[in-house]
Amino acid sequence: MARYKLILAYDGTTFAGSQRQAKHRTVQGELEKALRKLGWSARSVTLAGRTDTGVHASGQVAAFDLEWNHGFEHLLNALNANLPVDIAVKDVEIADANFHPRFDAKSRCYHYRLFCQNIRDPLREKMAWRVWSAFDSDALIETAGVFLGQHDFSAFGSPSREQSSTVRTVMSSVWKRLDDEWQYEVRADAFLYRMVRRLVFVQVAVAQGKCSKETVVKALEWPQAKNEIPAGLAPAHGLTLVEVRY
Amino acid sequence: MARYKLILAYDGTTFAGSQRQAKHRTVQGELEKALRKLGWSARSVTLAGRTDTGVHASGQVAAFDLEWNHGFEHLLNALNANLPVDIAVKDVEIADANFHPRFDAKSRCYHYRLFCQNIRDPLREKMAWRVWSAFDSDALIETAGVFLGQHDFSAFGSPSREQSSTVRTVMSSVWKRLDDEWQYEVRADAFLYRMVRRLVFVQVAVAQGKCSKETVVKALEWPQAKNEIPAGLAPAHGLTLVEVRY
Repeated sequence: MARYKLILAYDGTTFAGSQRQAKHRTVQGELEKALRKLGWSARSVTLAGRTDTGVHASGQVAAFDLEWNHGFEHLLNALNANLPVDIAVKDVEIADANFHPRFDAKSRCYHYRLFCQNIRDPLREKMAWRVWSAFDSDALIETAGVFLGQHDFSAFGSPSREQSSTVRTVMSSVWKRLDDEWQYEVRADAFLYRMVRRLVFVQVAVAQGKCSKETVVKALEWPQAKNEIPAGLAPAHGLTLVEVRY
Repeated sequence: MARYKLILAYDGTTFAGSQRQAKHRTVQGELEKALRKLGWSARSVTLAGRTDTGVHASGQVAAFDLEWNHGFEHLLNALNANLPVDIAVKDVEIADANFHPRFDAKSRCYHYRLFCQNIRDPLREKMAWRVWSAFDSDALIETAGVFLGQHDFSAFGSPSREQSSTVRTVMSSVWKRLDDEWQYEVRADAFLYRMVRRLVFVQVAVAQGKCSKETVVKALEWPQAKNEIPAGLAPAHGLTLVEVRY
């Protein structure tokens, strides 16, 4: 018996999120189904981060214990042969017996893609948010820097358990231009529930002139002001969990 | 009453191709459904090119006659409001009363995307073919040039009607590197049935050392030799109809 660490990629379009649910197709549920075909019989696998319905991943991490005597590469191939087309194992390694993908994580990195266009675009809208009003990209870029460092992010998400800390440290928060798209890269020690989609939504509101950068700074310094920033979430389909570091 | 020309984009993933079918969801079927909500009542719209199940488009062309008194832009918005998320109208213009999108076309252009990777990649595999054995990209690039000009392509596809000509003129046939992907651009006056997927399949066979460039040249000069080139089609999901010129 050994503990394994997997890197997973998935197209979140038709998953009801990452966490197992009795009546819905989820990433955890599909992974456990594939593992059972390889003789795995524990209660559940553990994932590094919860992703909502529609959110994608290129670097989700999962861990489980398994009796397997055929080598790493065979485990990777055996899992991929049993997983559906919209989920794949990218890498397998042996982990420390106590390895916990969520609690041991030092940081997580997400990407969010968006583009500005008035007309619908079916070939891109599964992986990027189409934003359709006038858009000040300088304001977008400037606002991103505001989130860097340690702050109480309670205006930008909720903790997974009530009463637990809403302080997080953001190490990277930057927009990059890729052809006619914008890609947001945000890395933090951990994120509150729906925090990335909330950060993107608020930054876009600033870029669209619906909210000032100063109001965002205020909500960050004094969370009681959270009603002054626009309520809402960027759509799930633009978001991808790209890396978890240990 | 006027004749309209539309530019259509669609994600072909869940369409049973472009042509209307009684029991399946198709591009033509969805477009006609949306038009009927705007008072259109003719028998059918006409499309420039047939696309197979799973093939995408960013520049498909459709034409129909419609009584419409609210301006172009409103027609575009009204159609997009009535079309499902995986199909969109990109542009609308008034056409000549006799305009026929298929018979009047001077050329069509397709793109085909592929990438080389042993491990599955759910975030990319809906729009690109994953090729997983060793791959000589120089051979790929060289082979593309072979198809340029006027040839009898009967070893690479079938005509839409028996006995009709299998001679086509290819004006562009080139592979471009885009990050870690290869994109094939092919333009011709017209294509035989499944010709682009066949051309891609054969070029990949050459790049993988399963067939020589000389054998391809032979099948092009002497179609009776068609059994000497590997049989098969590149998967539909890597293919996009990008432009039709008039």
